Amino acid sequence: MSDGPAASPGAPGPSQVYTWEPSNAAIAARYGLRPTDILRFDTNTSPVAPDFLPATLRGPFDPSLNEYPDSSYAELTGAASAYFGVHASEVVVGAGADEVLDLVAKAFLPAGSAGLVPVPTYAMYGVLTTQRAARVVPVPRLGAGQGFALDLAAIAVRLPDVAVVWLCSPNNPTGAEDTEADLEAVISAASELPQPPLVVVDEAYFEFSGGTVIPLRERYPNLLAVRTMSKAFALSGVRVGFGIGARSVIERLERVRPPGSISTVSARIAAQALAAPDYARANVAALSQEREWLAGRLGEVGWMPAPSVTNFLLMRIGDHEAAERAADHLLHTGIVPRTFGPANPLRGHLRLTVRSRPENERLLEAVRRL
Amino acid sequence: MSDGPAASPGAPGPSQVYTWEPSNAAIAARYGLRPTDILRFDTNTSPVAPDFLPATLRGPFDPSLNEYPDSSYAELTGAASAYFGVHASEVVVGAGADEVLDLVAKAFLPAGSAGLVPVPTYAMYGVLTTQRAARVVPVPRLGAGQGFALDLAAIAVRLPDVAVVWLCSPNNPTGAEDTEADLEAVISAASELPQPPLVVVDEAYFEFSGGTVIPLRERYPNLLAVRTMSKAFALSGVRVGFGIGARSVIERLERVRPPGSISTVSARIAAQALAAPDYARANVAALSQEREWLAGRLGEVGWMPAPSVTNFLLMRIGDHEAAERAADHLLHTGIVPRTFGPANPLRGHLRLTVRSRPENERLLEAVRRL
Repeated sequence: MSDGPAASPGAPGPSQVYTWEPSNAAIAARYGLRPTDILRFDTNTSPVAPDFLPATLRGPFDPSLNEYPDSSYAELTGAASAYFGVHASEVVVGAGADEVLDLVAKAFLPAGSAGLVPVPTYAMYGVLTTQRAARVVPVPRLGAGQGFALDLAAIAVRLPDVAVVWLCSPNNPTGAEDTEADLEAVISAASELPQPPLVVVDEAYFEFSGGTVIPLRERYPNLLAVRTMSKAFALSGVRVGFGIGARSVIERLERVRPPGSISTVSARIAAQALAAPDYARANVAALSQEREWLAGRLGEVGWMPAPSVTNFLLMRIGDHEAAERAADHLLHTGIVPRTFGPANPLRGHLRLTVRSRPENERLLEAVRRL
Repeated sequence: MSDGPAASPGAPGPSQVYTWEPSNAAIAARYGLRPTDILRFDTNTSPVAPDFLPATLRGPFDPSLNEYPDSSYAELTGAASAYFGVHASEVVVGAGADEVLDLVAKAFLPAGSAGLVPVPTYAMYGVLTTQRAARVVPVPRLGAGQGFALDLAAIAVRLPDVAVVWLCSPNNPTGAEDTEADLEAVISAASELPQPPLVVVDEAYFEFSGGTVIPLRERYPNLLAVRTMSKAFALSGVRVGFGIGARSVIERLERVRPPGSISTVSARIAAQALAAPDYARANVAALSQEREWLAGRLGEVGWMPAPSVTNFLLMRIGDHEAAERAADHLLHTGIVPRTFGPANPLRGHLRLTVRSRPENERLLEAVRRL
């Protein structure tokens, strides 16, 4: 998913121990609004769904829905391998990139091992590491002034202790891309260890930046790129993601992949989208332009977003209390920002998804009234 | 899914380390048939999809497909709790019952612990136990003459060593239901231990028999019933399943549930199906009648199915070689039976799904030509 546990405002009470983003209905109930008033600036999704959907959804499906999906997901895997420019045996599919990350934890993180996580980043890496009774080794990224870059020296020190390195580039929630040199430095250092840890590079926002480690899989068998249909392809609701790496890595993941976590409908929609990626490219071009426009307007009212190559903007509001106050104000108008908990290094920040122009205008109006 | 790794004929070669049922296309390629010639008697699915599907699939969906599904799956959970007659806080949802089983393994089977599995049964219990680096403790069921009943004495001896007991009633692939008394004996014995293991009762075929442990959750907090949309509801392709138990069990499962493994489309279809379960009841009534008809006809040609309360029939063909020969003959006509590997106690058996009358006629014709 877009985020991690706990930090979203309007989350349900203690009955739900594991809180992710609350639904529109839950937020509306909490702030006395109608669900249709709610605008999600917290999930880094695209503002509109692709227009080929109605035709796809009508079916008929093969196999029909009373039968199980093809557990090899041959059509989906074929479409993915063509889009990624790799062999089908170098691709594993999952119910969202989240499931691919879970397969990594299952296959590569035995109990008692450790996973290295440059922070701040997507919360799921830590969650999945902990679920395997493995240890999280957090390594802070460099500061905003250094573009939140990887701390290569600190990573190198911890590398021999870990079984998995969880990288995310472009990184969520900071919005910047790691340089090719930095990424290869980590991957290469890892590969030279006697027990090379698997280096995962979550490229959920790849289409926005164009940088990818996929070509490196031929030199480094300890590498896995992760991709998703949830961002550029505007299909968060279908829950399809991929891992791409050397065949030896994919085989280990296949050993723990459940046979049918992706519905037949989702597999079909995703395959169709991958075979016609022009709309994703157009979506990325439009959202990137809109991002610069939105960043400019936010800057004019004193909210200075960090440079972003993605479809979201991170900005420092002040201390944690100031950020919470701003979030609360937005929420009362139905606008949902992404907030960070008091223990998070980004506790004084908000993160905002780039949405459509009218939606972004509504956001700006609310910000101006602050 | 319907089955386990490895035993289906026509499975792809060694490149795929973890083989489940092969696709129609893979089987057709292997036997020189067209994919449309293939009839699946191996997956225990329903012969037709529910007729409300086209309308459901057209959408619009809420949230729309460019957004993430509601991670609390409130609509789906509400429909499920109404259908099961329990409170929403007593239900956990999953991408198929398989994911619910995976949540059990994650929450209740630490590395080094053990899971008790009465065998023969659904292979996934053993697979998931092993994936957690936990030990499988197999306890043979009694023989065909005793209706494949649970060996209560043998289970009682092993109960103190295990963290999870994996039961399946009606049991796949034997087709018989455990008695309420047997099930409660295991659940109650488990609950009296100082460290009560969780007793999972997979009720995938519940609607065919009507027996359920759900009411027992109020007396036994160490109990989880598992249900699916894949059998009576004829929706294997949408991948939705449920766990039902005391709130304390559900909370432990929620802690490891991924936020969005079920697509928005699947959640909607399943909620709609649960709200109108009459078609599932009609499906069960028709398939149960068809099962008796098919069992009778198979008996006439010397294949004597074991008594079944489900939508499948298990029958002894002879030794393993005889069963393989019969399977091979059927496969050459495009009919896919479920076979059992040479190490399986059912190695001389085949299992056949009850399908529509014309499809069952085609099966009988092929059997008669043996």
